[in-house]
Amino acid sequence: MRTGIATVCLSGTLEEKLRAAAKAGFDGVEIFEADLVTSSLSPEAVRSLADELGLGLDLYQPFRDFDSVPDELYRDNLRRADAKFKLMDRLGIETILVCSNVATASIDDDALRAEQLHGLAELAADHGVKVAYEALAWGTFVNDFEHAWRVVADADHANLGTCLDTFHILSRGWDTEPIERIPGEKIFFVQVADAPKLSMDVLNWSRHYRVFPGEGQFDLPKFLGHVARTGYNGPVSLEVFNDTFRQADVERTAVDAMRSLIWLEERTAKHLAAGTAESGDPAATPTPAQLAAASRAYPMPLTTLPQVAPPSGINFAEVKADPAAAGASELERLLAQLGFESRGEHRTKPVSLWTLGDARIILNRQQARGVAPAISALGFDVENSVTAVARALQLKAVAVPRTSQANEEVLQAVEAPDGTEVFLCQDTLWAEEFGAGLPASATEPPAARIDHINLAQPWQHYDEGVLFYSSVLALSPQPSQEVSSPAGLVRSQVMQTELVGGERAVRLALNLAPWVQADSVRGTVADTFQEHIAIAVPDLIATARACRARKLPFLEIPENYYEDLDARFGLEPQFLATLRELDLLYDRDEQGDFLHFYTATVGSVFFEMIQRIDGYDGFGAPNAPVRHAVQHAAQKSK
Amino acid sequence: MRTGIATVCLSGTLEEKLRAAAKAGFDGVEIFEADLVTSSLSPEAVRSLADELGLGLDLYQPFRDFDSVPDELYRDNLRRADAKFKLMDRLGIETILVCSNVATASIDDDALRAEQLHGLAELAADHGVKVAYEALAWGTFVNDFEHAWRVVADADHANLGTCLDTFHILSRGWDTEPIERIPGEKIFFVQVADAPKLSMDVLNWSRHYRVFPGEGQFDLPKFLGHVARTGYNGPVSLEVFNDTFRQADVERTAVDAMRSLIWLEERTAKHLAAGTAESGDPAATPTPAQLAAASRAYPMPLTTLPQVAPPSGINFAEVKADPAAAGASELERLLAQLGFESRGEHRTKPVSLWTLGDARIILNRQQARGVAPAISALGFDVENSVTAVARALQLKAVAVPRTSQANEEVLQAVEAPDGTEVFLCQDTLWAEEFGAGLPASATEPPAARIDHINLAQPWQHYDEGVLFYSSVLALSPQPSQEVSSPAGLVRSQVMQTELVGGERAVRLALNLAPWVQADSVRGTVADTFQEHIAIAVPDLIATARACRARKLPFLEIPENYYEDLDARFGLEPQFLATLRELDLLYDRDEQGDFLHFYTATVGSVFFEMIQRIDGYDGFGAPNAPVRHAVQHAAQKSK
Repeated sequence: MRTGIATVCLSGTLEEKLRAAAKAGFDGVEIFEADLVTSSLSPEAVRSLADELGLGLDLYQPFRDFDSVPDELYRDNLRRADAKFKLMDRLGIETILVCSNVATASIDDDALRAEQLHGLAELAADHGVKVAYEALAWGTFVNDFEHAWRVVADADHANLGTCLDTFHILSRGWDTEPIERIPGEKIFFVQVADAPKLSMDVLNWSRHYRVFPGEGQFDLPKFLGHVARTGYNGPVSLEVFNDTFRQADVERTAVDAMRSLIWLEERTAKHLAAGTAESGDPAATPTPAQLAAASRAYPMPLTTLPQVAPPSGINFAEVKADPAAAGASELERLLAQLGFESRGEHRTKPVSLWTLGDARIILNRQQARGVAPAISALGFDVENSVTAVARALQLKAVAVPRTSQANEEVLQAVEAPDGTEVFLCQDTLWAEEFGAGLPASATEPPAARIDHINLAQPWQHYDEGVLFYSSVLALSPQPSQEVSSPAGLVRSQVMQTELVGGERAVRLALNLAPWVQADSVRGTVADTFQEHIAIAVPDLIATARACRARKLPFLEIPENYYEDLDARFGLEPQFLATLRELDLLYDRDEQGDFLHFYTATVGSVFFEMIQRIDGYDGFGAPNAPVRHAVQHAAQKSK
Repeated sequence: MRTGIATVCLSGTLEEKLRAAAKAGFDGVEIFEADLVTSSLSPEAVRSLADELGLGLDLYQPFRDFDSVPDELYRDNLRRADAKFKLMDRLGIETILVCSNVATASIDDDALRAEQLHGLAELAADHGVKVAYEALAWGTFVNDFEHAWRVVADADHANLGTCLDTFHILSRGWDTEPIERIPGEKIFFVQVADAPKLSMDVLNWSRHYRVFPGEGQFDLPKFLGHVARTGYNGPVSLEVFNDTFRQADVERTAVDAMRSLIWLEERTAKHLAAGTAESGDPAATPTPAQLAAASRAYPMPLTTLPQVAPPSGINFAEVKADPAAAGASELERLLAQLGFESRGEHRTKPVSLWTLGDARIILNRQQARGVAPAISALGFDVENSVTAVARALQLKAVAVPRTSQANEEVLQAVEAPDGTEVFLCQDTLWAEEFGAGLPASATEPPAARIDHINLAQPWQHYDEGVLFYSSVLALSPQPSQEVSSPAGLVRSQVMQTELVGGERAVRLALNLAPWVQADSVRGTVADTFQEHIAIAVPDLIATARACRARKLPFLEIPENYYEDLDARFGLEPQFLATLRELDLLYDRDEQGDFLHFYTATVGSVFFEMIQRIDGYDGFGAPNAPVRHAVQHAAQKSK
């Protein structure tokens, strides 16, 4: 598949955009007109820069408000087009995008439209230009891809074809099946964008909220499957208007964009191999041979990646801390008070291992100068770490450089968008390198395991994080939620594995917190963002009592919370008294009950101990505002 | 009018919210349940804190999902309500808000609803509580205030009334006239919020985009006029869910909120005095006597302020700079190259005056340590500066402390939300204090005047800025626009005076730029935000030639821009060549033409020279992306 990206997706100058697109591995770009007009590079300079970068200039866009107009305006529009065709000749661009008229259309007549587009195609032919006509979702008269195609078919000119844009088609909910009735050679261009399903006017939705494939809710593999079946073999190019991407670092956004097309290629091949109507049916997993066949079955070849299953557990979590930083000395004490046991020091590095049942936490003091305790790495259990890393690298993840001594386990890791190191682990042999190793006998079910991790995401990389964890680790994104805190709303996106026998192997919550978005929240000092590690135990009340006996600093829950809890659930008095006594929080879903408590925060890390009863599947979200409020007050009193 | 604010409008803990509301001058607050539940203050402590602060606790809210349910759930809902009524007794709150059911409503029957609400009112009466029933805009069965009122009327209980919320009424476009058919004593509470008119689902619109009165597009004076006519005399209380306010400094948000209610009172009195159907008709300006009468005509008295006319011009602009800072030495040179003449030093302060026609720019070197050139103050021409300042102070503006020597003009100033000092000037006598004073004879029309100022706004105070300039200075907000830049979209809001004889006395553009929102835009160094002063001259081409002769550093406009301009407008070749030669930009609207050019930036300030031809009324917005791109490239190359 030929990959492309419109320059409007990226921040910076035209030159910065072109360099970033080339570096991320795109085959070509669409030149967005405003990017050229505002550039100090001449068209010839743009052309030679693209040549030098090995980047095709695949489309010039957009040419607006051409069709459905009175004759005088039509002639002026031809004059405008002639200027742009000459410019395209200097740029060396063959195809121009013409979108359906929204501003000046006054005559709703398909015959006139076809005639005017035929006239445009005649002029284009004189310049060796091809015109790709596209229906905007808010076009005055033409807002449906089938209508645009009918007009193109009626105009019947070799230099006139159509452009399909997923946003304009899927935002309106048009049936995509008729795409297959368009001959592939009359599809001159394909633009793709994903989007969250929002209920708002389509123009604002389009201009601000588009995201890269895999970061939204459109069924893009199904769309691209239809396109492949037409015989189309041109560029599949991203056109994503997004307020955040326009502000974020251009090189990182380009990599995120490239990852999204790689993801889309693979998902499309899987969809074609499965032969289902909608894509993404997890039951319809094709064999490697089926997948390979599907990827080669159409003129548009679809590259696929090494396949991995979702992780089967969280192997470990690592917290980095400078022993001299605030909170570092409290960290080890906190783990001991939680019931963790020290398994000793690593034999060559300033790193120690702590375990509680199957929950493994590594304290890392290397390269930690000045770092207050912070979550720095996560290990995930995978079937085959070599395959998993190969897949991650093909998805443009950055490998973490590791220095391993002879006879040490080589752990493979890549960097997540928020900087967390993600280790892909096949076993726990690495633990042998610590003084005491892992305990000889583990109980079944284990005395404890890491249930979930909660990571704060920088605002620039929130959507990128979702795509990273879904494409690299095969975690499934859940609908995002919002939780209030004294410093603003926290947007939370859970990524997790499927429910198997009432359990989930891995749960990860990505939080976009206001104090990560903005750095001066309170005019004076911002709240530090906090992240946490949640550990599931079989009997939370017993654990809480034991922790209390070990003088663990619990997060203190206000009395008002318990009165409200009682009003909401009408709890049994003895049970309520126990919750109150132990600073426990409570929630209930359709399946079962949830008990949990939090520790005080050290550095930016705190711990949560939880018990899921009868298959409770949430995270105690109704209790999150209480936690935020108490943590906020604790931070202010420091 | 009794003023109130819901704690959910503000950031911070409950205690911080209460203190900020009291400090801003509110009479009372609504306790938002989640704020109490997450607080470590007991209900008794909240009550005594409010007492100490002189703040009424006017409402407990919300109680959700009560009505339209089967009997078993109804009994459980009464149990929930009983717990909350007991809590209210401890808080000393008399009224509870019950909103129409959205989650558990299953029986659509007004008789049943009235019966259930009657039952609730009976229970409430036992506790001395009054129930205010409100229709949520997205209520399952009840989403219209008239429907809610019918149910309340049918239930017919002394402890049951209705609550009117402007968002729920105006977002749905309900006719507000029927409000007058509700007896004032059956309206138990009134909540007000403004909002921009967005086309999106009403729930998300409500939860994230509400703003304070005067910051959105709802006709709130008309609404409150209806309420006044019912005889209502209870609290008018803000309930504003806004993502930004939830993050911003609590004390500043409370002041902004209080200002919005003062604005609303005055506008409502004006509306009542004018006797028009819609409010805001500028032709219907009441006399002071009419206004005073209208403000006392109903049981709800409406406080009004000293009246001022919109400013008749920009008296001066002040740029602050440390002579030792980067750009300071270029600043004076730039002014000279633009044709400004130095009118000498102030006789007691390190401040100098520069003029070009009627355009006056003050360079201020006092208290400027380390400040690179930045716009620090604006003077506006007002009829009476004492009245204007008195009004500003009543609108909670903060006075700028000034030290004046004997025999110096006392200039009155207040601080705008972005920190700009706003001077309210009756004349230019202050200029006599500078060595040369103003030139003896001015030409008519003047050789130049300040046409507009463009100020960057911090994200936390953008809406506050709109209300400040409209309430304090009587400028009118225009629809906001978006402009693309290499570092993201820039949201721009023009505030201006009315068109009189094809001219506007004052134009101010408030820009919310991405590099003001976020501080690390490019991963490394953020673009500095830039602000500018635009000066209108009678013959821009002559001015540009003269500036060129004086070696002014023009902002260099790319050749691509001129080619696009020609394609768009088909300009006369000689004219286009002149534009090109002089780095001029061009735009056209329905009235006329616009010519302008920009200087290079010094510190965070640059200048624009403009000519409006035949009543052109815009700001050359289509050219803004070119300016941003060139400035961005210039900044990167530094």
